[in-house]
Amino acid sequence: MPELTPIAIRDEDLALVTYDDNGLVPAIVQEAGTGEVLMMAWMNETTLRRTLEEGRTVFWSRSRQEEWRKGDTSGDRQFVRSAHFDCDGDTLLFVVEQEGKGACHTGAKSCFFRPFGG
Amino acid sequence: MPELTPIAIRDEDLALVTYDDNGLVPAIVQEAGTGEVLMMAWMNETTLRRTLEEGRTVFWSRSRQEEWRKGDTSGDRQFVRSAHFDCDGDTLLFVVEQEGKGACHTGAKSCFFRPFGG
Repeated sequence: MPELTPIAIRDEDLALVTYDDNGLVPAIVQEAGTGEVLMMAWMNETTLRRTLEEGRTVFWSRSRQEEWRKGDTSGDRQFVRSAHFDCDGDTLLFVVEQEGKGACHTGAKSCFFRPFGG
Repeated sequence: MPELTPIAIRDEDLALVTYDDNGLVPAIVQEAGTGEVLMMAWMNETTLRRTLEEGRTVFWSRSRQEEWRKGDTSGDRQFVRSAHFDCDGDTLLFVVEQEGKGACHTGAKSCFFRPFGG
C-alpha cells in the first residue's frame, strides 16, 4: 500500500473554508506527478477532517446522502500528498497518489475523458 | 494576443451537461503545459456556450449575479485550449493558456496557493 501521509488539522485553516447551503464544498482531485485532473466530488466538514486525518480522500455523496471513502468499494484508493483551499475558501484541491486503474467509476483514469467538440 | 481557438458547439455535448438548482455547473480551470489547477468558478448554459464560441473563459458570478469574462477587468485572460465534461456531466474542465500574472484576484498565479497544515 502507498504511504499514508496525514495532514495536520489546524483550526485556522478549517475556519477559512466556507460551505454551501447544504454544508458542502467542492473538492478537486489532481494526480501527483502527472498533474492530471481526475475528478471533482463534495466534502462536508466531517469528511474534510477525515481526509486530512486519514490521508485518504473521503467525500459526501449527495445522491446517497452518506460518507464514502474513495476506493473502499472499487479498490482505487487516493492517498493525499497535499491539500489546498482557494482564495475564497469555497473550493478545495487535493493532490493524490491514485491507486489502481484510475478515479472514474466508468473505468477511465480521469472522469474528464470526454472533450467538447469531439 | 494568444491565438483564439473556439471549440465546436455540439448539441449532443451540451445535452450531457447537468446544472444545479441555480442553473450552474462548476468549471475547473487548469493551465495548459504546466497542468497547474488555477481556479474554479461557475458557468450557466449561456456562459458555457460563450466560452466555447469565443475561446475565452466566461463565468457566472454568483455574488454579482452577472456574466464575467475572465480578464476583461484584470487583463489576465484565459484562452481555451481544450474543454471537457465529466462522467456525470456535472463538472467541467477547461485547459487554458493563462495570460498575465495568473488567475487569482489576489495576484497569485493559482487560487489554490494556501495548503492545509501550513
